Amino acid sequence: MYELIYWPEIQGRGEFVRLVLEDAEQPYRDVGREDPGAVQAGLKTYAHAFAPPILRDGDVVLSQVANITRYLGEKHGLAPASLAGRATASSIALTIADLVAEVHDTHHPTAVDQRYEAQQVAAKARAKAFRLARVPKYLGYLERLLAENGAFLLGEQVGYPDFAAFQVMEGLAYAFPRTLARQDIPLLRAHRDRIAQRPALTRYLTSDRRLPFSEEGIFRHYPELDP
Amino acid sequence: MYELIYWPEIQGRGEFVRLVLEDAEQPYRDVGREDPGAVQAGLKTYAHAFAPPILRDGDVVLSQVANITRYLGEKHGLAPASLAGRATASSIALTIADLVAEVHDTHHPTAVDQRYEAQQVAAKARAKAFRLARVPKYLGYLERLLAENGAFLLGEQVGYPDFAAFQVMEGLAYAFPRTLARQDIPLLRAHRDRIAQRPALTRYLTSDRRLPFSEEGIFRHYPELDP
Repeated sequence: MYELIYWPEIQGRGEFVRLVLEDAEQPYRDVGREDPGAVQAGLKTYAHAFAPPILRDGDVVLSQVANITRYLGEKHGLAPASLAGRATASSIALTIADLVAEVHDTHHPTAVDQRYEAQQVAAKARAKAFRLARVPKYLGYLERLLAENGAFLLGEQVGYPDFAAFQVMEGLAYAFPRTLARQDIPLLRAHRDRIAQRPALTRYLTSDRRLPFSEEGIFRHYPELDP
Repeated sequence: MYELIYWPEIQGRGEFVRLVLEDAEQPYRDVGREDPGAVQAGLKTYAHAFAPPILRDGDVVLSQVANITRYLGEKHGLAPASLAGRATASSIALTIADLVAEVHDTHHPTAVDQRYEAQQVAAKARAKAFRLARVPKYLGYLERLLAENGAFLLGEQVGYPDFAAFQVMEGLAYAFPRTLARQDIPLLRAHRDRIAQRPALTRYLTSDRRLPFSEEGIFRHYPELDP
């Protein structure tokens, strides 16, 4: 059975992995939620894992969200079969991972290891640039992919980048609701609903396995950053 | 022949791709340097490429450095053959890509699209956290991999993440020479030399194909950020 090693209290980056596992209906142990000490132990054991999430599948141990979701996607029919299609899917998933890193930097623009309140001036500047320039650019990119390709980012078949796009839309709706409401992205909004209505995901999203968003995670709602 | 699409004036992220192509002795057209308009044209043509570098190999079109170098590495014997080994290599390459993004943020902590001079206060705070916390953490991670694995990050065989680690060491030596001099990373310094001495890379690094570092790229030397 898969073992997911991630912080127990937050959705965070682990959630991007959980969504793929849940849609693929793959059983997994969410190790950090059984034993919070397992996260530090995992980082010690697997030297090539710089940070959680870590996924273990027998002797295959992966870190980095876009790497883990690619592995799961290619294994469970949530990725194109062709080499060109797999290259495209990975390009998209990595671009969404960049967006997620930029979301994190809106509340931690100068020091990862210090509190938001200690870097609030820079956070306001960073969040402004994020709202005005980066959100339209990234969401416009996803909107264009849907316009070109159809129901999902890669075409008529769902793929692992679709779950990442869904989670970004959910996260932005929590953290930057006013900014998100201003975006002209009808296809991406319909795509979000299409993903949420997949039966396995609906079951997951309404279960207690789905943690709530909070100000401990990546997507944080600070009203002053979303005026 | 491979086509690399990247900004013509800087090493930037394109350099991580060039190093793999050069070590593998694969001919490629550096399209942006033949025609600077090719970069914008490439971004229009390939909707899944959010930003350069883009690599085209026939009908396979890739963006994102860690994705491109993985593809090249697996194709040209610069990656492990096993599934577990490939997962590890990709985890490492993506972690180095995160480090590169953090280097960029030292001079652009709040707005990608504004000048360094307009965000210098935040840059000083970000660079301080980078020097004190992030550089030791990332380089310590690479040092530990070498301690566990041998001559190269993945073991006794060179792999595509090794060229990324080399470029980071070169870039930090340019941008943060004082910070780099303070790190306790003997294995990583020897690794840097080992990579530089590979015949194909020595030829490349001493050719005019190797652009200089500059304050237009990712690794920028601002003395006030490296006191």
